[in-house]
Amino acid sequence: MKLATLNDGSRDGQLVVVSTDLASAHYATGIAEHLQQVLDDWSFISPQLQDLYDTLNHGKARHAFAFDARQCMAPLPRAYLLAVGDAYPSPAETQAATASLPNASSTALHLGFADALLGARAPLTCAHAAQYPDFAASVAVMTGDVAQGATPEQALDAVRLLALASHTHYRAWQDQPALALMAAPHTALSPVAVTPDELVWAGESAWAQGRLSLTLQCSVNGRKFGACNAGHDMRTHFGELMAQLCLARRLRAGSIVSSGEVRQLAVSAGCSSIATRRGLEMAQSGSAKTPWLAQGDNVTIDMMGPDGQSVFGAIDQDVQVGPQTALPAA
Amino acid sequence: MKLATLNDGSRDGQLVVVSTDLASAHYATGIAEHLQQVLDDWSFISPQLQDLYDTLNHGKARHAFAFDARQCMAPLPRAYLLAVGDAYPSPAETQAATASLPNASSTALHLGFADALLGARAPLTCAHAAQYPDFAASVAVMTGDVAQGATPEQALDAVRLLALASHTHYRAWQDQPALALMAAPHTALSPVAVTPDELVWAGESAWAQGRLSLTLQCSVNGRKFGACNAGHDMRTHFGELMAQLCLARRLRAGSIVSSGEVRQLAVSAGCSSIATRRGLEMAQSGSAKTPWLAQGDNVTIDMMGPDGQSVFGAIDQDVQVGPQTALPAA
Repeated sequence: MKLATLNDGSRDGQLVVVSTDLASAHYATGIAEHLQQVLDDWSFISPQLQDLYDTLNHGKARHAFAFDARQCMAPLPRAYLLAVGDAYPSPAETQAATASLPNASSTALHLGFADALLGARAPLTCAHAAQYPDFAASVAVMTGDVAQGATPEQALDAVRLLALASHTHYRAWQDQPALALMAAPHTALSPVAVTPDELVWAGESAWAQGRLSLTLQCSVNGRKFGACNAGHDMRTHFGELMAQLCLARRLRAGSIVSSGEVRQLAVSAGCSSIATRRGLEMAQSGSAKTPWLAQGDNVTIDMMGPDGQSVFGAIDQDVQVGPQTALPAA
Repeated sequence: MKLATLNDGSRDGQLVVVSTDLASAHYATGIAEHLQQVLDDWSFISPQLQDLYDTLNHGKARHAFAFDARQCMAPLPRAYLLAVGDAYPSPAETQAATASLPNASSTALHLGFADALLGARAPLTCAHAAQYPDFAASVAVMTGDVAQGATPEQALDAVRLLALASHTHYRAWQDQPALALMAAPHTALSPVAVTPDELVWAGESAWAQGRLSLTLQCSVNGRKFGACNAGHDMRTHFGELMAQLCLARRLRAGSIVSSGEVRQLAVSAGCSSIATRRGLEMAQSGSAKTPWLAQGDNVTIDMMGPDGQSVFGAIDQDVQVGPQTALPAA
């Protein structure tokens, strides 16, 4: 099933079930108000949502309405944990086009700000262009409870939902110790989060062995920027990322684990961030040509199924640069 | 007023109001079930809790019961943000006994795991003694909403509650990139969180200019380990820590900001972590004598008012080392 959260002016919004084609929606009122509740009590609540989802997809939900991604908050507007991995080959490896894929190894995860995840249409903000605003297009999972010491396979059993994520980066800040924490201030999520069973086409699951093998499409100002397959070169899969987080503690329901920027070794696949593209340009020609984001730019991130339909809806952010920029309402 | 959360088997527990002497408590049922609700809507809910608190302190609350810190979860059992500062002089500075206090400067904050804050009596766990388990006794504030770009003074206006915090550290892991995130897996909070107006004695507030000028008492196995005044040498005060977090984003209600380990320049004040004491020993005699924590050790952290009464109740953790160690129930 597919779930979204509509902005009703409250901190947690209102949970809705969205049809598989993203055309219509239905409030989950009476089942659950917020996605965190569903994740807290998944085995009890999710079958009820599934029933509503089936009814909606059959065109039989009485109070269905047109789904509008512009009304969406993040599916989970605030979470208790956001961990961001570094699951793909480094930019240096993608520059060496002949590099072979290294073995899976423990990657460094870091915690991100989970207290205010942004809706898919929230502006990508920064105060000054000199902060070098950038995006990093990623895939994320939302988890149930995972026991301490869980294996990667056990951890994967607790993946409840998948979504797209775009982390805002201020590249000029990331190497300054006093500013590094603020160098990735925001994460926007796709309008819709989907259960793993939505990722099956013609009997084949694009979600397998902890990797989502679909193409993450990034555009800047309407021009194709990247088309990296999110599964192809994923070195540390989601089960491994989650197991690392369970090394010394449990993972609680509602945790969000992001892959970090999706990359492919094949340079022809393009990039999921400006920083990576500039790195490629530097390696190829000695100078970075692609500018950082600027006022009025647009970044769109989407992922299509084999049927050509958007799976999660698009992250579609306009860049707002300026000290007066207000963040979207809570 | 003083607030605590009792363990009722649920993820968020049950909010109670606790009398100023920590002797009795009363469920906040009918006003708010969880502390996050109170922080989300402070101006509406907190006056109702204050009325109940006043009634309780006058011995007139009808369903009051004896307060038992052993029944406590963290006052906020799960939070959307935990940021940990480094607000005190470094161990190197405390070793140079003649060092003068440097000017306030921007300190590096980092995010901590906020998804499962531990109750004051939860065991301090680790799988192997070779992880070098340690504690870091700290002061923490819980905030309301703070606007992006807030000044330190504006940020201080949003401090709703104060508490003690003890961060569990695995010192053997903190310099290993793949393990560094897991090197501080848990934070325990004092049984009770208190509003700033509880920190006034004889007309004088121990909470002033973003610093709490009371002595943080740490004991290991019943022996005095540290007695650092939390206000005396605090270099970056809580308003400054919060303002740093508001540099590029808002701070949302229910955020927890920890000072990081409390230290005093005067060596005679002792230490709030074993790591700092071992550092002092190394500097003085060339070898560290104090062992890391071990199975069966006990760490107690408390803070008394000028009247000799515990303000927040004590953090009182028994150390459990072993691979079978279960974490306390959610």
